[in-house]
Amino acid sequence: MSLINLISEAIFGKDKKEKTARESAKERLHLVLVNDRAGQIAPDFMPKMRQELLEVLKKYLPIADDDDVEFNFARKENTDIMEMSVSLEKTDEKKNIE
Amino acid sequence: MSLINLISEAIFGKDKKEKTARESAKERLHLVLVNDRAGQIAPDFMPKMRQELLEVLKKYLPIADDDDVEFNFARKENTDIMEMSVSLEKTDEKKNIE
Repeated sequence: MSLINLISEAIFGKDKKEKTARESAKERLHLVLVNDRAGQIAPDFMPKMRQELLEVLKKYLPIADDDDVEFNFARKENTDIMEMSVSLEKTDEKKNIE
Repeated sequence: MSLINLISEAIFGKDKKEKTARESAKERLHLVLVNDRAGQIAPDFMPKMRQELLEVLKKYLPIADDDDVEFNFARKENTDIMEMSVSLEKTDEKKNIE
């Protein structure tokens, strides 16, 4: 099963625990990086990389407040999983991009 | 359960189907965007946004060949899940970043 199907099933699965993940996915944009070789991103570059990724997302998505960025990091079996989530503006119309 | 724990459990879970996802996570960097408001990224901007995200990743990670980019997209219950994966160079030493 591909990663995207796994994640999609994880978020939209049936049992209780997935429901909480779906609630947490609400109103926020989540960017997840799964890097198979742990430790490759030098810790001091992580904040810079995160900020640059955020700058790209801000161009295309109605990010409400880029100070409201949550960041999670997990390392398991030589794989780094970095998650960044930002709040989305309440308005529904698409951001007009110059 | 937070999204990162769910994804981490999904990749490193026990049963058979997760194993194939772990295999597919191997040797590749995966970037997953979970956007709670489907359709917010105008389709014509998706390729541009993807390319710009890739440019950021290339600065910090030993991406082998940025033509070897796999892209998956799923839409479920008003949520868009976009996955981009790129192959990582075989070398282990960290990329020296100017």
